[in-house]
Amino acid sequence: MADEFSYAYTLRLMHDGRKYFGPGVARLLRLVQERGSLSKAARAMGMAYSKAWNIVVHAEEVLGFDLLDSRAGGRAGGGGTVTERGLAFLDRYEAYAARLKAEADALYAECWGDLGQQPVAGEN
Amino acid sequence: MADEFSYAYTLRLMHDGRKYFGPGVARLLRLVQERGSLSKAARAMGMAYSKAWNIVVHAEEVLGFDLLDSRAGGRAGGGGTVTERGLAFLDRYEAYAARLKAEADALYAECWGDLGQQPVAGEN
Repeated sequence: MADEFSYAYTLRLMHDGRKYFGPGVARLLRLVQERGSLSKAARAMGMAYSKAWNIVVHAEEVLGFDLLDSRAGGRAGGGGTVTERGLAFLDRYEAYAARLKAEADALYAECWGDLGQQPVAGEN
Repeated sequence: MADEFSYAYTLRLMHDGRKYFGPGVARLLRLVQERGSLSKAARAMGMAYSKAWNIVVHAEEVLGFDLLDSRAGGRAGGGGTVTERGLAFLDRYEAYAARLKAEADALYAECWGDLGQQPVAGEN
């Protein structure tokens, strides 16, 4: 799409100045749901398993509850599911991200609609 | 500020999938205004002059007008001021960014104001 004007933003939830949740973790958890393990989810994102593990553990530490169920095969063993609280948090995050995107899209259209075509979705 | 929950985002204006304006360029231009040259502005940001130059030139190409006045000493010579159209665009960008921040702040407070005040839980 030549000459297309748009905007982009990246969103992160922060704790003590450090990111603990964002679109990457959210996608990772959705992939765990779909594929049944953190290792498969990490692979699908082209991410090292150790990195995926660290991201999840950090989010869990900040949130104070497990996102992945470590029973039933264990995370390191490749098995794994998203916990009920993890799914609830994921739903909540995604609803928040969708609302922010809707507001940001509307504001972009209002402020910059004259620059070119319609706004393109941010990375949220 | 221990245990503080917050959020962060980075905003960029895009053209053809490539960033052409954002907080960095805006700050650079404000510094040119204050300090009288792109080289001083770049130095104040700890940015290489060549990088600052490329950022400004790319934004000018996308926008179709000069952001910096290349007369009166010339940009490369270290002199420089922000053009009238550049200042108008900068004002417009900053007003937009401020509105987005206000909306995002309000939404964050609405959606996540409970974080850190009570145990985190999903809505469902």
